[in-house]
Amino acid sequence: MKILAIDSSGMPASCAVCEDGTLLAEYTVNFKRTHSQTLVPMLDEIRTMLEMDLNGIDAVAVAGGPGSFTGLRIGSAAAKGIGLALNKPLVHVPTLEGMAYNFYGSSGLVVPMIDARNQQVFAGIYSFVSAQEPEEVCNAESGWRDPLHVYSGQEALRVTDLCEKLNTLAQETGKEAVLLGDGAVVYRELIEKNLTAPHWYAPAHLAQQKAGSIAVRAMDLARQGKLESAAAHRPEYLRVSQAERVRAQKEGR
Amino acid sequence: MKILAIDSSGMPASCAVCEDGTLLAEYTVNFKRTHSQTLVPMLDEIRTMLEMDLNGIDAVAVAGGPGSFTGLRIGSAAAKGIGLALNKPLVHVPTLEGMAYNFYGSSGLVVPMIDARNQQVFAGIYSFVSAQEPEEVCNAESGWRDPLHVYSGQEALRVTDLCEKLNTLAQETGKEAVLLGDGAVVYRELIEKNLTAPHWYAPAHLAQQKAGSIAVRAMDLARQGKLESAAAHRPEYLRVSQAERVRAQKEGR
Repeated sequence: MKILAIDSSGMPASCAVCEDGTLLAEYTVNFKRTHSQTLVPMLDEIRTMLEMDLNGIDAVAVAGGPGSFTGLRIGSAAAKGIGLALNKPLVHVPTLEGMAYNFYGSSGLVVPMIDARNQQVFAGIYSFVSAQEPEEVCNAESGWRDPLHVYSGQEALRVTDLCEKLNTLAQETGKEAVLLGDGAVVYRELIEKNLTAPHWYAPAHLAQQKAGSIAVRAMDLARQGKLESAAAHRPEYLRVSQAERVRAQKEGR
Repeated sequence: MKILAIDSSGMPASCAVCEDGTLLAEYTVNFKRTHSQTLVPMLDEIRTMLEMDLNGIDAVAVAGGPGSFTGLRIGSAAAKGIGLALNKPLVHVPTLEGMAYNFYGSSGLVVPMIDARNQQVFAGIYSFVSAQEPEEVCNAESGWRDPLHVYSGQEALRVTDLCEKLNTLAQETGKEAVLLGDGAVVYRELIEKNLTAPHWYAPAHLAQQKAGSIAVRAMDLARQGKLESAAAHRPEYLRVSQAERVRAQKEGR
């Protein structure tokens, strides 16, 4: 299976091409330029480097949210455009599941968090099923076992509430937590005040959104049949935009 | 600390720029083109994307071997060229330590292996020191603790001998092993015959050389003072080239 993957949900713009067990190309830029300026030229750059006919891909994977509203729309627009033009299906990868794949195979709690302003984050709590664990963890229908264990699916919550969850979970499981994403940078002080569970922070090369992780998660989701049409794809914002909130308030809703 | 990192030791060509806790750019291409065609254009591409003056970097990190003879020479030549032109120090990162950083924080045995032909690999066995472990693991002089624990430093050895080592070590430590690098792909059948220790194979996005890992390992090595001048840098091939072996045989050495 050959996947073209895109993640522009946060500050970094990232794209990758993955074919089965091989990452053919991955390109990530985390700089002040906007994704509308960078993403398509980056896609074109790796396409040229790989001398690739885009018709040869089987699906387009996209980090489908949560994340920045504008970033998600740019990523989705690019993925939908390619999918519609070439008649290829899309794989919607939850952004935080993709980020968790940076720590694929980790036996600890993997906690990606994206800054959602006002001491809130979009976060999830994951771990990985050990290859040695008994077979009953397999998906009964397909016989395929999802390596990702979801303790807590992605949601918008207060940093202090996330810390409380982690404190409880770390005690129950005896696992230590690795924190990643820009939320872990922005709220580090607040985290240090509230998180008593053993934890550490991701180093630079694994701390952010990467399209290679999106591609590999997408292959695992595609195995479970989680493909959608380009027309049907919608990013998942997890909450309404500030503009919408303000209007709703004004209108007394 | 701002690092420009290069890894062209294997099939992928990869370059990255990392500043302290942030990966500013990473670009990896794993395609049939030779590194002499790809590496410098890739460096120029990320330099342009980051609107970067190369004078702003503090050091050039390079995957210093083992690996392909030609690949290592191209990477070293590029790193030495930049270092000499801009008067910047180099950080020589052992290739397999860089690859181990793909699984940063893993509590298992991390086993990068590069195909060295004839059922041999360049391999090392690593794990990561938990952030929770007692302070005596710290480096006494600097107070800084190397997160990388080396069970077995990089060397050229037979795949069967590596499997034997791993079988013993897994029994002693109770850890499972993650295998990565092209050696794990090429010799998978041989590994399955000889490796009785619990193990699994790296997924695509973490299976190969990546310059982001080289950059972060380089920052950790630089903290220990392991910088060298561009003039002094030499790649470490770990064994003599086939051409040299053939000549030595002919000359009866």
